[in-house]
Amino acid sequence: MSTNFIFNVPTKIYFGDNQLHHLGDELKQYGKRVLLIYGGGTIKRNGLYDRIIAEIQKAGLELFEMPGVAPNPRHTTVNRGADICKKEKIDVLLAVGGGSVIDVAKFVSPASFYDGDAWDFFTKKAEMTQFLPVITVPTISGTGSEMDAYGIVGNQDTLEKIPLYHPQLMPKASFLDPTVTYSVNRYQTACTAIDSLSHYLEVYFMKPNLFMLESAMEGFMKTILKYLPVALEKPSDYEARANLMWVASWALNGFTFGGTNQPFMCHYMADELSAKYGLTHGLTLAILLPRYLSYTLNEKSAPIFYSFGCNVLGIDKDMPPMEAGKQVIARLEDLFFNVCELPKTLSALGVDDSKLEDMAQVASRGTVLHGFVDLSKDDIVNIYRLCL
Amino acid sequence: MSTNFIFNVPTKIYFGDNQLHHLGDELKQYGKRVLLIYGGGTIKRNGLYDRIIAEIQKAGLELFEMPGVAPNPRHTTVNRGADICKKEKIDVLLAVGGGSVIDVAKFVSPASFYDGDAWDFFTKKAEMTQFLPVITVPTISGTGSEMDAYGIVGNQDTLEKIPLYHPQLMPKASFLDPTVTYSVNRYQTACTAIDSLSHYLEVYFMKPNLFMLESAMEGFMKTILKYLPVALEKPSDYEARANLMWVASWALNGFTFGGTNQPFMCHYMADELSAKYGLTHGLTLAILLPRYLSYTLNEKSAPIFYSFGCNVLGIDKDMPPMEAGKQVIARLEDLFFNVCELPKTLSALGVDDSKLEDMAQVASRGTVLHGFVDLSKDDIVNIYRLCL
Repeated sequence: MSTNFIFNVPTKIYFGDNQLHHLGDELKQYGKRVLLIYGGGTIKRNGLYDRIIAEIQKAGLELFEMPGVAPNPRHTTVNRGADICKKEKIDVLLAVGGGSVIDVAKFVSPASFYDGDAWDFFTKKAEMTQFLPVITVPTISGTGSEMDAYGIVGNQDTLEKIPLYHPQLMPKASFLDPTVTYSVNRYQTACTAIDSLSHYLEVYFMKPNLFMLESAMEGFMKTILKYLPVALEKPSDYEARANLMWVASWALNGFTFGGTNQPFMCHYMADELSAKYGLTHGLTLAILLPRYLSYTLNEKSAPIFYSFGCNVLGIDKDMPPMEAGKQVIARLEDLFFNVCELPKTLSALGVDDSKLEDMAQVASRGTVLHGFVDLSKDDIVNIYRLCL
Repeated sequence: MSTNFIFNVPTKIYFGDNQLHHLGDELKQYGKRVLLIYGGGTIKRNGLYDRIIAEIQKAGLELFEMPGVAPNPRHTTVNRGADICKKEKIDVLLAVGGGSVIDVAKFVSPASFYDGDAWDFFTKKAEMTQFLPVITVPTISGTGSEMDAYGIVGNQDTLEKIPLYHPQLMPKASFLDPTVTYSVNRYQTACTAIDSLSHYLEVYFMKPNLFMLESAMEGFMKTILKYLPVALEKPSDYEARANLMWVASWALNGFTFGGTNQPFMCHYMADELSAKYGLTHGLTLAILLPRYLSYTLNEKSAPIFYSFGCNVLGIDKDMPPMEAGKQVIARLEDLFFNVCELPKTLSALGVDDSKLEDMAQVASRGTVLHGFVDLSKDDIVNIYRLCL
């Protein structure tokens, strides 16, 4: 067993419904000129925008704004942000929004020190070397971007969507206020919780090196399965929103990996659907996950399904592993499609079989993905087909 | 439910059996003059000392040494370290040892910027304001000191032992090599794992605010109960040592607290036994814990025992809560006294009833401790008596 890894998550987390008053002091540490990055009008409607502006003013900081970050954001949006930073000599970035807004801020950070197109970072044509500090106020929980060193951005010209990692992409501080997510609608609540669940599930099924991580992940996944239905039923349930919010942050900050470096197969497949069709990330995962699990369930992989079934879903320990595997898939399908009422197929979202080969080529990284079950490009095409 | 908290653990963790080669680079960031703080001859016998010296030399750093830190360390030891730092203009502290060595380094850090007695920090006569960076290589796992902002030091004159917290006491980096703990003997392996277990158990029984923390803690405690017997049986079992090591680090770094700030009752009682009788911390916890639980088990508290029993020990869910509570206590007693073969009573360690009142006075903080069951000074005397 090799377990060599480096764990380093310096992001300062302010958690709770009474923390925003620290925002000014956090920002001030890094300078005077703040660029507020956000999406559409949601934060204006729910009052968060006003609260943030008040904190910035109270701290005597200079405010610059970059609204209009769209879901599945593009590299051109990053370039737009970098231009503002260069022109206005911005000291610190404040991202208020979901994963898209936060990811844009993360890449505006190095792009504001780079003279070319930010897409060069993703194609490895250029390296990220210098960074502006990023502070985040997530308005939705799921991506984990507020406490990790990853981001993902798409290119509308090439229809690519590429994730990128750099330790310096980790936000300096994040303000996690569960009450901010009260206004997240049913559909987004479901999609983001399923994204979060899949972050754990993909690692869990690959078998982490350490039992302590395996059992912690079981606890985290139990949390999502317990509170997602509650949040759907009662959007303003603090306990549900708080649990869903904090558990999402722990998914991709490195804690669960424990020295393993395995492919996030379902994410690779999902990212292609967002790149080519602009579909919501969590929704594509909801459709893919049960089919991916059906396709990979066999006598050899069944014990992992069995562990998940017993320890996360509370399935009877006497059930034979293959039976438990089928139960796991049925239970997830029930949650995603009946409880969350998400569409069940890709066809319903306008996806046909014309791009399956192309998408599978990218998702497979042009090779065979080695995981708890190996997947070739053809396997991935087969899984996509099961989703149509 | 209030869950306002700040989580911030910037300590960089190098985990695994092949990480020490990063030590030179880590130290170098902070300057050239390194003070190596350690205990007795163990690290010389097991070769760790030589490996560390080699890394320091390879990095071209200047080495100063402070050996001889004893278990249950005293403030005078801290003063001795501070004197070296002032005289030799030390840039960075390197603690190689158990919790005692690491805690001493943590307090040498601010003491080297203070002109008086380091004990003044503990009596609140002086504030810690400036800090030398601390890097640790724990040789034993249990205290969690390598990744938290606490430390504890005793005063031999006043027979006090006082814990202290400051965010700046968090080590900058820690090197966790499970193979280093292969040589930890049976007794110390048991005591430190029980210390670690109690860090979780004391928080768990107070009912954390968030289910996700509760269920993560269940996973962490399961890990300790699974691997402690393995490590006793096979001291060089990497999997067991790795799990015990990493799980110990997560106990006191703030993750499990989730905004609660509850008394560590058993620790308060245990610390007094170490202060007055110099007893091993983990051993006093092993003796106290089952009696503390017996004393606090009642119809009202039984549901917490039941959760622990079912989710950590795998006790049958059909068992009535009071029955489950008794089972929990019996199972812990079996582990501590039969499997670990630790002494069962305080009398066996030379403790009589002469100081019980004094100890209870300090342990109760002169008031009633509010927890899952409230404990007055008299209750604490009663618990001590059960341990005699």
